[in-house]
Amino acid sequence: MSRTTTPLVLRLDRTARLPLALQLADQARRAIRTAALAPGARLPSSRALAAELGVARGVVEQAYDQLAAEGWVESRRGAGTFVARAIRHTPARSSGALRRDPAVEQRPPVLRLDSGSPWVDRRHHQGWTRAWRAVAADQPPMHYPDPAGLPGLREAVASHVSAHRGVVCTPDQVMITSGTAHALSLVLNELTPGAVAVEDPGYRAAVATALQQGWEVVDIPVDEEGLDVDALVRSPRSDIKAVYVTPAHQHPLGSVLSATRRTALIAESRRRDALVVEDDYDSEFRYDVAPLPALAQLGLDDVVYVGTASKTITPGLRIGWLITSAARVLDIAERRTARHDHPSWPVQRALQAMLEEGHVSRLVRSARRVYADRSRLVRERLSPHGRIAQPVAGMYLVLDISPRRVDHVVATAAREGIEVPSVADYCRTTSRSGLLIGFGGMSDDDLRRALDVLEAALRDSAGVDDEEPPKSGVLA
Amino acid sequence: MSRTTTPLVLRLDRTARLPLALQLADQARRAIRTAALAPGARLPSSRALAAELGVARGVVEQAYDQLAAEGWVESRRGAGTFVARAIRHTPARSSGALRRDPAVEQRPPVLRLDSGSPWVDRRHHQGWTRAWRAVAADQPPMHYPDPAGLPGLREAVASHVSAHRGVVCTPDQVMITSGTAHALSLVLNELTPGAVAVEDPGYRAAVATALQQGWEVVDIPVDEEGLDVDALVRSPRSDIKAVYVTPAHQHPLGSVLSATRRTALIAESRRRDALVVEDDYDSEFRYDVAPLPALAQLGLDDVVYVGTASKTITPGLRIGWLITSAARVLDIAERRTARHDHPSWPVQRALQAMLEEGHVSRLVRSARRVYADRSRLVRERLSPHGRIAQPVAGMYLVLDISPRRVDHVVATAAREGIEVPSVADYCRTTSRSGLLIGFGGMSDDDLRRALDVLEAALRDSAGVDDEEPPKSGVLA
Repeated sequence: MSRTTTPLVLRLDRTARLPLALQLADQARRAIRTAALAPGARLPSSRALAAELGVARGVVEQAYDQLAAEGWVESRRGAGTFVARAIRHTPARSSGALRRDPAVEQRPPVLRLDSGSPWVDRRHHQGWTRAWRAVAADQPPMHYPDPAGLPGLREAVASHVSAHRGVVCTPDQVMITSGTAHALSLVLNELTPGAVAVEDPGYRAAVATALQQGWEVVDIPVDEEGLDVDALVRSPRSDIKAVYVTPAHQHPLGSVLSATRRTALIAESRRRDALVVEDDYDSEFRYDVAPLPALAQLGLDDVVYVGTASKTITPGLRIGWLITSAARVLDIAERRTARHDHPSWPVQRALQAMLEEGHVSRLVRSARRVYADRSRLVRERLSPHGRIAQPVAGMYLVLDISPRRVDHVVATAAREGIEVPSVADYCRTTSRSGLLIGFGGMSDDDLRRALDVLEAALRDSAGVDDEEPPKSGVLA
Repeated sequence: MSRTTTPLVLRLDRTARLPLALQLADQARRAIRTAALAPGARLPSSRALAAELGVARGVVEQAYDQLAAEGWVESRRGAGTFVARAIRHTPARSSGALRRDPAVEQRPPVLRLDSGSPWVDRRHHQGWTRAWRAVAADQPPMHYPDPAGLPGLREAVASHVSAHRGVVCTPDQVMITSGTAHALSLVLNELTPGAVAVEDPGYRAAVATALQQGWEVVDIPVDEEGLDVDALVRSPRSDIKAVYVTPAHQHPLGSVLSATRRTALIAESRRRDALVVEDDYDSEFRYDVAPLPALAQLGLDDVVYVGTASKTITPGLRIGWLITSAARVLDIAERRTARHDHPSWPVQRALQAMLEEGHVSRLVRSARRVYADRSRLVRERLSPHGRIAQPVAGMYLVLDISPRRVDHVVATAAREGIEVPSVADYCRTTSRSGLLIGFGGMSDDDLRRALDVLEAALRDSAGVDDEEPPKSGVLA
């Protein structure tokens, strides 16, 4: 047992943010951990060390108290302070290969034509400002909020959804979520894990959510009438517990689920005792007639209706809702409570204000007009180069061209700083080719610039289908 | 094929929010679905129906266009409008037993002494207001935010955690979360599912999160030195992939993980190739010496450090952080992107403002003083009635009394509108008895009132251990 006083090499930095006592404790701890100070070793007295370092004795005492509280050292009355005996030493493990963080990388300015970024009319910024000022003025609650959502917000959502989407429901059938994928996650979490049927091509975040949650995904093809319900009926899988669909505006192909298929889908889901999850992401933005009625109108016992504020206000808000039977809302709320998965109070408070004072309705009305105009413009400019189905709603169109032309246009546009998603990126087992032209989250000028680039690239790509495929082989 | 015009029984409500055309379409749809209108049946001409209902012809045309777009009806040029042939009828399924929503139930006013509700000094309300006014003034972003968090916030968290907790890290080692349980969920989602070791008694939301995610939970007992690391070492389970601990202030028993056990825990987690998840929920609020250094100081390759704003600002904010190696942050961010699990932009923006302008530090400093005073008061009043370990930090204490006294006090307090959690509620395989006295989320007056009730109940309960157990049996 070594009882000699061990010299500590200490460097206190008086300009650092960390108080001197903490610096001292830190360095002593490191010395103990790396065995520079051995178990059982005696530390200098607080008086001696303070004199040596030129600090008040209280600083050293505070550091020693700290180390004692943590168990690194032991004080024995009259004898001094000693390094604890039972410390194991942990050599630093080499750190893993450090990759660069893409978020902080320098990137060339890129205009993304993605299908999920909305146009938000800055002329209505007042509504945003007022809502957050209401949050600023309120006292935050002391406890966790109700996992189903603020009562006032659930009421505002119920009346919004009934006015805009004809889904008639009571506030206790509404649950506030963090967006569409979160809603799907909540629903799957209620069910015995199995398989979920998803449109192919379809919404990738839904597939990722299901897979990450340990579910299997059954891909069901899509045509101009939406999900191919017959393919679902024919599926031999007996463990399909949920069907995820975008009936009002199939993502990404844009078709509408026909009435025949709607009733067939409900019948088939009942036969399988599976829940239908209806993702109604952008149908407020229907151009021609009023938005299609939701599948949820066929009954909230069979359907979970899922909506989001991402497309009307901003994707960065991360708030949405699900609507289903009140009993199912209670079940989900119970499980959310258990794991403290509550919706954020300020975001709920702000959304409630935005709904109540008409901000959301104003945004929907002006965005709908802008999307109708922009979709006409995009069709005018691009339809000479490929098929574009008559759009029904929303902030994107699909241009149907061959895979080789897709590759050509994507590459050409990328060189001009324009990112165009390919439909193939949304396919898992099917093969569809085309470009997804999102026209929401940008200015009119940016859209025109993007269309100039795309038009030129499309014109230029007209011949690629007739070219010989590139030769391959060792001597090519 | 019936070609007769079917009379529709329609009731349009001119005072309703829903436009007349939508009401009309709704009612026609219901008639088709319930087979009141048969497949193939002809609808009245728009002119005739408009005249009959006393509305503009355009209203009826709009309704018919809508129904046609949805596929419920078909228009044949020159012949009229017909109900589509291939509609299946879906009788309404009887809805499940409706339970009452506890959130909207009338409850007597209850004072909850829970361990998770903080005291938030209203004198610092300015900082809250300023932060949300900054959000109000900003333009919301058009795209999804970085799933790891806003760069400025990650930087602010890195310097907060280094100043308050001595965890030295770079912003790319910080990820913004929706709170502690969400952080655990993100970490588990990265690992091959297996078992997670959790303190028993311990944090129930961590257990619920793991179980709901399909993980098994291995319960490790706790004593006055924190997690019993030897019990972990002895565990025969070979699939423990993560260890969830509250080293600075064990939840709920309040002990501190000793230095010996800290190094042993790291060594054992390396041996098992398991990650340590360090939940550092309330250690800013240490009374006596500076907060204990985080386990994370032993190396961010082995440890994921988890913090939250729930205890400093408000639980309703739903924001927190995890700190680990930059490589692991990137891995988690990639999976979050795939399922659109981004932290909410306004909440991040506000937290960044609150950290940068010192609001959080001010709240921590005044709450720490209040907790130190309140913990002294609670000990003074209640320690004559049971053992209370010297508290080190935070907003709750544990009163060690027998199970029968616990039952007596909980029941007596409940009658006075005071809810006191029992330690047994946090136990899974161990049996500990005592009361958890939270003193954060309430006024001084409420606390005094609660202590009066508790003191009287405790005095009153002194004899229950000596009483005969209640007789049972048919003839008792």
